[in-house]
Amino acid sequence: MKPQKLKGFRDYLPAEALLRQTIISDMQEIAKCHGFQPIQTPTIEYAETLLGEGGETDKQVYRWQDTGEREVALRYDLTVPFARFAAENLAALPIPFKRLEIGQVFRAEKPQKGRFREFSQCDLDIIGTRNISADIEVISTLAKVLAKVNFGSFTFSLNHRAVLSGLIRHFLGEEGQKLEAQVLIALDKLEKIGAEGVNKIILSFVDGTQIGEAQVSAFTHFLVSAKADFEAGLGVMSAEMFKDDKEALQGLSELREIFQILKAMAISSNAHFGLDFSIARGLAYYTGIVFECTMDANPSIGSICSGGRYDNLAGRFTREPLPGVGGSLGLDRLVAGLNIEEQTDSAISDKIFIILPQEAQREAVFILAQQLRGRGLNVDVFMGTSYKVANQLRFASRMGFKHVIILGEDEVRNNVYTYKQMQENIESKNLTFDELLGKIQ
Amino acid sequence: MKPQKLKGFRDYLPAEALLRQTIISDMQEIAKCHGFQPIQTPTIEYAETLLGEGGETDKQVYRWQDTGEREVALRYDLTVPFARFAAENLAALPIPFKRLEIGQVFRAEKPQKGRFREFSQCDLDIIGTRNISADIEVISTLAKVLAKVNFGSFTFSLNHRAVLSGLIRHFLGEEGQKLEAQVLIALDKLEKIGAEGVNKIILSFVDGTQIGEAQVSAFTHFLVSAKADFEAGLGVMSAEMFKDDKEALQGLSELREIFQILKAMAISSNAHFGLDFSIARGLAYYTGIVFECTMDANPSIGSICSGGRYDNLAGRFTREPLPGVGGSLGLDRLVAGLNIEEQTDSAISDKIFIILPQEAQREAVFILAQQLRGRGLNVDVFMGTSYKVANQLRFASRMGFKHVIILGEDEVRNNVYTYKQMQENIESKNLTFDELLGKIQ
Repeated sequence: MKPQKLKGFRDYLPAEALLRQTIISDMQEIAKCHGFQPIQTPTIEYAETLLGEGGETDKQVYRWQDTGEREVALRYDLTVPFARFAAENLAALPIPFKRLEIGQVFRAEKPQKGRFREFSQCDLDIIGTRNISADIEVISTLAKVLAKVNFGSFTFSLNHRAVLSGLIRHFLGEEGQKLEAQVLIALDKLEKIGAEGVNKIILSFVDGTQIGEAQVSAFTHFLVSAKADFEAGLGVMSAEMFKDDKEALQGLSELREIFQILKAMAISSNAHFGLDFSIARGLAYYTGIVFECTMDANPSIGSICSGGRYDNLAGRFTREPLPGVGGSLGLDRLVAGLNIEEQTDSAISDKIFIILPQEAQREAVFILAQQLRGRGLNVDVFMGTSYKVANQLRFASRMGFKHVIILGEDEVRNNVYTYKQMQENIESKNLTFDELLGKIQ
Repeated sequence: MKPQKLKGFRDYLPAEALLRQTIISDMQEIAKCHGFQPIQTPTIEYAETLLGEGGETDKQVYRWQDTGEREVALRYDLTVPFARFAAENLAALPIPFKRLEIGQVFRAEKPQKGRFREFSQCDLDIIGTRNISADIEVISTLAKVLAKVNFGSFTFSLNHRAVLSGLIRHFLGEEGQKLEAQVLIALDKLEKIGAEGVNKIILSFVDGTQIGEAQVSAFTHFLVSAKADFEAGLGVMSAEMFKDDKEALQGLSELREIFQILKAMAISSNAHFGLDFSIARGLAYYTGIVFECTMDANPSIGSICSGGRYDNLAGRFTREPLPGVGGSLGLDRLVAGLNIEEQTDSAISDKIFIILPQEAQREAVFILAQQLRGRGLNVDVFMGTSYKVANQLRFASRMGFKHVIILGEDEVRNNVYTYKQMQENIESKNLTFDELLGKIQ
């Protein structure tokens, strides 16, 4: 049988798998230090639990009838299952509840470059509170994870849905407000198609209203110019545009405070924060802060981290209102944006390989490996087919080991070690254990 | 809609999820230090890739036709997908290849206590070598993971398929050898139903052979007595039973050496090794060493870790022979055998909570949290609804925080901190930052 994967699925070979594992542990460690608690939900749910939230997404759900004739489906994100989880386990959870979840999700999309049918999501959420401390906590925790991954500098762009709604009211009036959902979908394309393109889309659905080209142009022109100089934009909005709009002013004040505190925290010299009043984050359920993060050196890869505040997580499952704020790290995009070779080289440069010239010294080799690993060193031992030292050295060289220890009959009899520094090809014989440690530590 | 999970699936709440996360990181860290490399394969494969290996297992596979009319299935273990992976990626892998894989697998079994339809597997394998150093490496790495998890002492029981075959030949003759597969399945039940029960099963399928009750009883009697005193068993086998059986003698010599080196490595005072010549590990594909590990204080929970050596991993996919050895950690059983409460209590006892009596000091609270987290401390900040200090203290107490810091208007103005030790309810006021650190570190 020909070994093959399904289209849209992939294997992770060691270099990439190790990098993913490292990023996930970083996220787990930082989330723990910030008081987030991990949970895990099933990969399969009742289809009706998952369906009905998003029109487009529904078509991409893997679903079938199981042998018990139940309609079941693979989760397409971690948010809908979390809503089911929160409603079902509410009594057992502290409120506010700070949750970390990392898992595989599935979408039967048309496969294309960088889009796969199975991928990982890494989500942080705080539910059960409207306190904007939670907004700061989610964004700053994500920023610390990105700083720890250490791929260069990155920028979080923040916006607030109430500010965006205020701008729509200001520029496009009540009629514009009624078309808000469509305006937001158009705005999501601003980065890709520019203000002209967005203007065209908006003008295509304002027929029969008072909204004309002048208003639409003024609106997108303000968004673009306020992104370039957001301090000026903030000034104009609070002093003029929103002076009679309490909701927009309240949003503006929250956005200002969150932005101010994130900057004051001095999270990392790589972590930058800015405002971008055009960010909408398409999904209709966001109601407060919304954010996106891009790599400064590689913005074309798109958002590597995003999220926002919502009014009610689990309205489909419980009458208990669960306001919250959440964000998601795009593990696959992040890894795609990193130089895997570079990351791996540094990871293996301290590795040690022990050569075994004949079977009789096997016990001595494993005892030495045990002693060195006990000191936290990365050690591998020969376990191939050919006992020839030259072959074992070739293997060590190909695998990128920096240090090689040879433990043959003479070494074991005299209780000494032969050491070889691979890069410079320097051999040292008759080392004591302490001398050996000096070479490899 | 009523929030509900499918039968046979479960949510992991924070305490259990954290414990699982910790065990997985321990395994990843130790595997890395031992030269194992992580890989990841898709959760979904072509049905024909997964089916046809095991008769019983085939019935339990979740399978359906996807929207592209492909027959697809969820993996039911990590071994069959690894065979596909190895055959497909052989040219890119170092040989021998040492692989770690951790992932979710699915079986549509009848749900029962402790058996779920989705569970985790944690596999280590070394492929491409017949060198028994690989056997030692797999077993000792698993033992180190279990020692790190630190749930008390545990025992690995080892056997060798060639030794077991030799015993079947010796006691049951050539006719017994032809029935070996059935004998192995019967032996797998020895622990549960005792020698008498196993005798009955074996006698039920030896009709028409020379094998009688006397031979069968002598066989199981030897297995039971040699488990109690395996040194005596080893002596009798090598000196008498196997003196004309080269294959069995070779197996015995490998088993002895592996056992001897595992003991000599002094892995942990909690790690014990023994021999048990009755272990068969049902699966027909094992050909060399086989092993199982149980918790000494809780053997009834069954094997928490098991594996063995096989002749060819990927015969269905490639002509390249891939002999290897592998083992699997039973994460779910392991966690079921641990006292979660106990594990969690110690995990949260060092947590710090910062109280915010009014919004104006929010920035100061986040800057303090950032400073403390930068020192590796586990810190949470108030983000609830009620700013009353008494309510925040109640929340901190319920959540098990040991240290509470109060940062109000006076504290921020005077650049001091109020600290409360929660267990003994001792409050200290006007602390400097260094004095505060002295209390909480």
